[in-house]
Amino acid sequence: MVIALITDFGTRDYFVAAMKGAILSVNPRAIVVDVTHEISPQDAKSASFTLRACYTDFPPKTIFVAVVDPGVGSRRRAILVETNKYFFVAPDNGLLSFVFEEEKDYHVFELTDKKYFNQNISRTFHGRDVFAPVAAHLSKGVETDKLGREITDFVRFKTDKPRKISENETEAEIIYADNFGNLITNLTKNDLPERFVLEIKEIIIEKYLEFFAQAGKGELFMILGSAGFLEIAAFKDSAKKILNVKAGDRVLIKKVK
Amino acid sequence: MVIALITDFGTRDYFVAAMKGAILSVNPRAIVVDVTHEISPQDAKSASFTLRACYTDFPPKTIFVAVVDPGVGSRRRAILVETNKYFFVAPDNGLLSFVFEEEKDYHVFELTDKKYFNQNISRTFHGRDVFAPVAAHLSKGVETDKLGREITDFVRFKTDKPRKISENETEAEIIYADNFGNLITNLTKNDLPERFVLEIKEIIIEKYLEFFAQAGKGELFMILGSAGFLEIAAFKDSAKKILNVKAGDRVLIKKVK
Amino acid sequence: MVIALITDFGTRDYFVAAMKGAILSVNPRAIVVDVTHEISPQDAKSASFTLRACYTDFPPKTIFVAVVDPGVGSRRRAILVETNKYFFVAPDNGLLSFVFEEEKDYHVFELTDKKYFNQNISRTFHGRDVFAPVAAHLSKGVETDKLGREITDFVRFKTDKPRKISENETEAEIIYADNFGNLITNLTKNDLPERFVLEIKEIIIEKYLEFFAQAGKGELFMILGSAGFLEIAAFKDSAKKILNVKAGDRVLIKKVK
Repeated sequence: MVIALITDFGTRDYFVAAMKGAILSVNPRAIVVDVTHEISPQDAKSASFTLRACYTDFPPKTIFVAVVDPGVGSRRRAILVETNKYFFVAPDNGLLSFVFEEEKDYHVFELTDKKYFNQNISRTFHGRDVFAPVAAHLSKGVETDKLGREITDFVRFKTDKPRKISENETEAEIIYADNFGNLITNLTKNDLPERFVLEIKEIIIEKYLEFFAQAGKGELFMILGSAGFLEIAAFKDSAKKILNVKAGDRVLIKKVK
Repeated sequence: MVIALITDFGTRDYFVAAMKGAILSVNPRAIVVDVTHEISPQDAKSASFTLRACYTDFPPKTIFVAVVDPGVGSRRRAILVETNKYFFVAPDNGLLSFVFEEEKDYHVFELTDKKYFNQNISRTFHGRDVFAPVAAHLSKGVETDKLGREITDFVRFKTDKPRKISENETEAEIIYADNFGNLITNLTKNDLPERFVLEIKEIIIEKYLEFFAQAGKGELFMILGSAGFLEIAAFKDSAKKILNVKAGDRVLIKKVK
Repeated sequence: MVIALITDFGTRDYFVAAMKGAILSVNPRAIVVDVTHEISPQDAKSASFTLRACYTDFPPKTIFVAVVDPGVGSRRRAILVETNKYFFVAPDNGLLSFVFEEEKDYHVFELTDKKYFNQNISRTFHGRDVFAPVAAHLSKGVETDKLGREITDFVRFKTDKPRKISENETEAEIIYADNFGNLITNLTKNDLPERFVLEIKEIIIEKYLEFFAQAGKGELFMILGSAGFLEIAAFKDSAKKILNVKAGDRVLIKKVK
């Protein structure tokens, strides 16, 4: 059974290794996969985007463990979300809001049974002491309702959606910049008129392409990216650097005839 | 069966996780190994060097998936190369030229049978939609000629070889700088006279050592590196920083008596 | 059987892949886990701290392979340490001193039997040619005394311990700064008086918290960290940046009434 990890721990320290050790100590046959550990410290929003963009690529029964957890040790709860196909283990801080949005059937459990935690539980590292061992027990077949009680008052954030601000204009935002400097917006295909241009920082981008190599080197264009969102890209160059923008910055879609 | 991945995706985004999810969805028993994902964006040359330097260390039947793919979505083909011992899956952009050079017996197939691709194929992310699932099917025993038709007009680049430019001089180049700042040239043992010095940026390096600790700290020297090429190194220091050079820069080997 | 790797190789080059290939060539069923490869070049001290902080989280029989090895190719020996629960393979350069300190029963073997090395042994990359294949053979059940002869004159460093310098003062040091900028000292719970303040760079830190979210954003405080040492932290901020300190810098614990 696959256990896939996403954290803001970085890969330089002992944190990720400690989680993997804790998992393999409970279930030596678990297949541990890294989604990423390079989420910026405390950036739950980027973690949400990243996990949302790839979780459906994983096999059924995959257990995702998401630890971006500034509230560790406080009264914030630890939760498990079970959908028809997957499990998600995380702090109850809104990180999993995308699951509540994307999935129709799900159950949320507060993780309360300490039998499935490490014997000693620190107040600073629940990745190792709570989330990893719970995921490992789950991967061995422990049933979800054994791990804690079902709850309905879990934390859920509203995802920022594009807003129609006039007959011909939709306001949206950059939600992520990837390794290539491509700028991912929160606009999906359904948010887009038949013909449109995009305005960002007083620059108008008109070109809408189907694949990267259609553009000239360094030329800015729009493309429907592999995560299902409209992206601003520059062929063999970084749109992020060219435009000097960041997550949260505003874009405007203008309908044209 | 081992599936080893090399890409320019970085490890911060969802790309690598999506590929691993796609592989494990087809073959949950595949053993997925990262060669590296930190190839500079679009730097097929570094990817070639890196894969060439380690592929023979892997067990027989390993499937290498190499994705440095600025042409994704265009008419560039996807190929599979089968040698006596290994498989390589990659875009047909010359990235695998080192295989055609190093190996004697090989067959190249264009990947055409969509049965072995993802159900939905984006035009921006064939790592997830084409290369990963094909590798996974291959690891389950699908035969190579089922995946597509054999071709002979694949893209192949000439590797830059050292050139003898006079009786006593050979011109070569830096092809890679590693994490320690060691500068790897394209010179192999056979390219070197019995006694020689190396000139780079008007600096003459005379010392040729067998292992690093023979040098004083910070001292520049030559060494036959673990990838089989002559390297310029500095003990406990970075030759790259000391010399301020980069891949592509010229070196000169001068025979001495 | 788990083989866990810690090196200063970085993840950009072919080094780690070559080690994994070498392991899987000997034992295709080995479960290879990365502790980290981002130890600063030649920084054996950080490697020691990192491995010490997580090795007990791994399952029994885990084989740790630690390669920070500036002396590769010289007369420095390669060793295997066997404890009641784990194996450690490393160059004999003091990197494993923490094992000799933490564990009571252990045996140290010099790795001498070339039957368990790669066929060709470079003088620059024993990670691939010696340590990886030895670990792989060990994971297949080869007995430790087959791999070499037991020795007692292995290299062992004294760990820097806090020193009581007056009735009310203990001098200690920063041994590591983690990804979040938390500063880890060499002070354990036993080194601390009932009530105390910490002085670093003429700044007095009085607050001692149990978990991170008890502090205000950016506020400096002390906390007993998940590696068992006293840490200086700043909630949602980097204590390292705020204080501009580094590993090796001095801290002073002052008893208060």
